[in-house]
Amino acid sequence: MSGGVKGFRFAGVHGGIKKDGALDMGLIAAEEPATAAGVFTQNRVRAAPVVLSERRLLGGSCQALLVNSGNANACTGRAGRQAALNLTRAAAAVLGVPQALVASASTGVIGVQLPQQPMLEAIPALVDDLSANGAARFARAILTTDRGPKVARAEFKVGWSVCRILGIAKGAGMIHPNMATTLGFAMTDASIHRSTLRRMLVHATERTFNRASVDGDTSTNDAVYALASGAAAARPIAEKSAAARKLAAALEEVLETLAKKVVADGEGAEHLVRIEVRGAKSDADAVQVARTIAGSQLVKTALHGCDPNWGRILAAAGRSGVGFNPDHVSVKIGAVPIFDHGVPVMTAKTESKAASTMKRREYEITVAVGKGRGIGHYWTCDLGHEYVRINADYRT
Amino acid sequence: MSGGVKGFRFAGVHGGIKKDGALDMGLIAAEEPATAAGVFTQNRVRAAPVVLSERRLLGGSCQALLVNSGNANACTGRAGRQAALNLTRAAAAVLGVPQALVASASTGVIGVQLPQQPMLEAIPALVDDLSANGAARFARAILTTDRGPKVARAEFKVGWSVCRILGIAKGAGMIHPNMATTLGFAMTDASIHRSTLRRMLVHATERTFNRASVDGDTSTNDAVYALASGAAAARPIAEKSAAARKLAAALEEVLETLAKKVVADGEGAEHLVRIEVRGAKSDADAVQVARTIAGSQLVKTALHGCDPNWGRILAAAGRSGVGFNPDHVSVKIGAVPIFDHGVPVMTAKTESKAASTMKRREYEITVAVGKGRGIGHYWTCDLGHEYVRINADYRT
Repeated sequence: MSGGVKGFRFAGVHGGIKKDGALDMGLIAAEEPATAAGVFTQNRVRAAPVVLSERRLLGGSCQALLVNSGNANACTGRAGRQAALNLTRAAAAVLGVPQALVASASTGVIGVQLPQQPMLEAIPALVDDLSANGAARFARAILTTDRGPKVARAEFKVGWSVCRILGIAKGAGMIHPNMATTLGFAMTDASIHRSTLRRMLVHATERTFNRASVDGDTSTNDAVYALASGAAAARPIAEKSAAARKLAAALEEVLETLAKKVVADGEGAEHLVRIEVRGAKSDADAVQVARTIAGSQLVKTALHGCDPNWGRILAAAGRSGVGFNPDHVSVKIGAVPIFDHGVPVMTAKTESKAASTMKRREYEITVAVGKGRGIGHYWTCDLGHEYVRINADYRT
Repeated sequence: MSGGVKGFRFAGVHGGIKKDGALDMGLIAAEEPATAAGVFTQNRVRAAPVVLSERRLLGGSCQALLVNSGNANACTGRAGRQAALNLTRAAAAVLGVPQALVASASTGVIGVQLPQQPMLEAIPALVDDLSANGAARFARAILTTDRGPKVARAEFKVGWSVCRILGIAKGAGMIHPNMATTLGFAMTDASIHRSTLRRMLVHATERTFNRASVDGDTSTNDAVYALASGAAAARPIAEKSAAARKLAAALEEVLETLAKKVVADGEGAEHLVRIEVRGAKSDADAVQVARTIAGSQLVKTALHGCDPNWGRILAAAGRSGVGFNPDHVSVKIGAVPIFDHGVPVMTAKTESKAASTMKRREYEITVAVGKGRGIGHYWTCDLGHEYVRINADYRT
């Protein structure tokens, strides 16, 4: 992995959580306090680091992010909250930054206390490991059942200066045994006001991570962060400027790439499918229909079997709560029409074409529900035997 | 199967739909027009017989119910609507009853036209087959991928007279390839006003069939009917009388038994699990939490693996949209506490006890979310390899 982003250093070490000695503690540190925003899980049950970090990010600044994998520090009560506090305090001390500027994130088994002592002892080594080129180690240190690290980059110009965004995520498709925790981190060297960054992050997360159908379960630990160092030699980005639009687009592109990698990384998932809904009364309606189709077990098993089963797609759309006339519905698999204005139109030839599209690693299903202007999409993956194997056999 | 219910006759024949010559057409006929009520799928995409029957039941009377399996007559457009009309007209003619008093239901593949000609030709034989003891044949004629027929009975007294309810259903747990269609029929010889019967049916369906987590997909064809012949030598049941309460309880008991049979009949489902939620602010809140837990893929795969995974239960509760304090949550598997007031309490001993409870065919998981009076339940089953095999490999 080439280069980093100006103003940030990254690290990853083994801190004694994972039994196999793999990297399990990661750190992102900014040279100066960075402008920061975070989006956190909507689950009522929230892990200790989520509660701590949300509070600390209220000020819109952050200088370090301490992340561990292998243990979620969720459902761990007062002791878990104290552990999150102690670890961020220790990292702040070794980094020489205010404790209030250190946030944290955890992912892994829940209901088990962190092995605090070895983790505290690993912090000096973690800080030592920090380097401008350390993103690859950080990306590995935050993984749990992921097949591999997830990194995405984008560049854009502010005036004559090039600004960069580096995105790093973890999360495995539909099936992470530890409740599908998704963590995302986007670092940019652009300079931007905290309220603008926050709005951009909320918007981009809504259109990317929140459009990825994992298995419908929202983790206790989900979090997406954006940090802006302002270290590029570029002028500050004003709200509603052309530069702001470029940053927003680049941020969405990075998060979209990461979200797709998360969906595609479902253990056992063989297909990454974009469900696009058109012709709804509003975008919100279209997204709601796409979400219901993307989350349907019957649709997902049909995707696994490469079965162009328009009936299941239609039935899922029908129970989405969105009003439409079934006689106006059309469905395409890739470019192949399989259902047209309320009537199946598959011939032996189109069925075989549709089935061969469905064998691809990535493809799109388009569902038109009427003549409205509403449009929306959702990413999903197939539901196969591996899903059951991993999730039913996880603890036994 | 012993006996029927006064005032009704039942039949089942092969009408040329199923390739293997199995029974695929069923008929329920009342001697006189029966008081009738129906509850129909909320899916926007509704099969032709659903649309036809809902309209015909508006008057609160029905004398015959024509049911076929093997073909859902859904997404079949104008031709499908005409077929439903033709078939009920033919049945009415042979039975000698008004066409407006004949309702119909279908279940099976969707998007394929009914083989109308052989079905029309089979109607005289179907009417010939009618008998007071024919319920077993009817129960078989409406099955699709069910493991076997589903019948339930109850009795209650109105004054000195015994009244009966006979319930017959089809539907296979979480996984029916044809979108999990559930059909339910409850026949009683009690005498009751149509508006009272309707209220009772809506209430009982809400607490039984609508508390059974299939796979979250609502079929195009789901329907539950109640028919009252008034043929028992009992006085008419007045609303809010003791007899009305007895009938309501008996109806709920019959539908509950049928709904459990439907959930338990998931191909591959090995466990029937009642999720009970207590301590919510309202019953509606409790049901909502129970529904979210019951529908969670991660919970259902854990049930399959006999894994007392309170984390997944808690995470599902947390995203149900219902407010509660995680520190007040407790979870029991059967009688075994595994999570108590926000903290896991499993020891090696209780874990093994919980795991052995989870090996049972049927058990309960209780989730207390606070000190409120709200209580509610949901039936669910485990998600195993068979589910994937059947649903992914259905057409291929």
